[in-house]
Amino acid sequence: MATVLPAPVEALRELLEKLPGIGPRSALRILQSLLRQPTLQVQLAEALTQVVEKVAPCTYCGFWAEGPQPVCAICADPARDEPILCVVKEAGDVLAIERSQAFRGRYHVLGGVLDPLAGIQEKDLRLAPLWDRLRRDGYQEVILALGTSPEAETTAYYIARQLADWPGRITRFASGIPVGSDLEYVDPLTLSRSLRERQPFSV
Amino acid sequence: MATVLPAPVEALRELLEKLPGIGPRSALRILQSLLRQPTLQVQLAEALTQVVEKVAPCTYCGFWAEGPQPVCAICADPARDEPILCVVKEAGDVLAIERSQAFRGRYHVLGGVLDPLAGIQEKDLRLAPLWDRLRRDGYQEVILALGTSPEAETTAYYIARQLADWPGRITRFASGIPVGSDLEYVDPLTLSRSLRERQPFSV
Repeated sequence: MATVLPAPVEALRELLEKLPGIGPRSALRILQSLLRQPTLQVQLAEALTQVVEKVAPCTYCGFWAEGPQPVCAICADPARDEPILCVVKEAGDVLAIERSQAFRGRYHVLGGVLDPLAGIQEKDLRLAPLWDRLRRDGYQEVILALGTSPEAETTAYYIARQLADWPGRITRFASGIPVGSDLEYVDPLTLSRSLRERQPFSV
Repeated sequence: MATVLPAPVEALRELLEKLPGIGPRSALRILQSLLRQPTLQVQLAEALTQVVEKVAPCTYCGFWAEGPQPVCAICADPARDEPILCVVKEAGDVLAIERSQAFRGRYHVLGGVLDPLAGIQEKDLRLAPLWDRLRRDGYQEVILALGTSPEAETTAYYIARQLADWPGRITRFASGIPVGSDLEYVDPLTLSRSLRERQPFSV
């Protein structure tokens, strides 16, 4: 089937299929929609070029920022004054936490987690800037929010050990039963962990 | 949440959300994945630009083709010699039919269906080239495969009336129960139509 497509359309189709969550069917749907809307194609090409040219990791936290000396909207916001630094794996994690509107401190994007098998070592992560920030700025707490994969747990453990002499608190997000979930749908590991870490019932 | 995004990233996010089947969540996932892969971004921008610059409707059938005098892969294929012309609404319909590998004739992409309420009239569709092709080329059958919406049915009826004096056969795809479907999942309209158009059982 693909052979009936002109080469540029086929090239676009193949690239669309590389996007996460886009299978052959949705790639075709998007392809059709794009081919019907040349303006959208031009805008999208332009937006992609702008992002490649202008967006760079924030000098401080590593989140997406703009310009030759990039500082992200969060690091630039004087109202983010809670002395808490939340260490996350990727820029997208910042968005997830921001969506909850529950955190008023700042972030540190590590750019990955330690993974010896995949060749990701200390030097590949933004660890040196993390030590710098914690030494220099007056943070009183570090939240290690790297996820729950074995590699993430190891990385959190590694960071916590490196910070043994640091005077502030080191915490992680509570694990447990998602709000609104029925017990029967919660996996056994989560259930056992939320039992172990049960909280006093406050009335 | 969106306010923490740098302007170029926000612009890209908004454009991604305009693609069919891409909601806010999947737009963010794609955004993250793109920001991790600058090469993919560049390739995608380039592919979009190439499509805008090079792809044009086939001179004969209206399907996607390339070049200043575009002829699509199907019209250019001498092996497509069945004297049947299949009239479809959009270029994407060609792909759907090609996927079935059941048709060896050629296509005519109408570019829409008559829809007076939306202001789509005869002159907005590729009808004149259709009459030309049927007059000039030795087709013996026209399949009207425009879909089953009321507008599509009206358009098919309109074309059939215009072709009243044309000597070939005018047909449409059989409607009926999809292969592999259980009766209980088939909508009543489809069921009644496939009852009305029941076929002799051949053994």
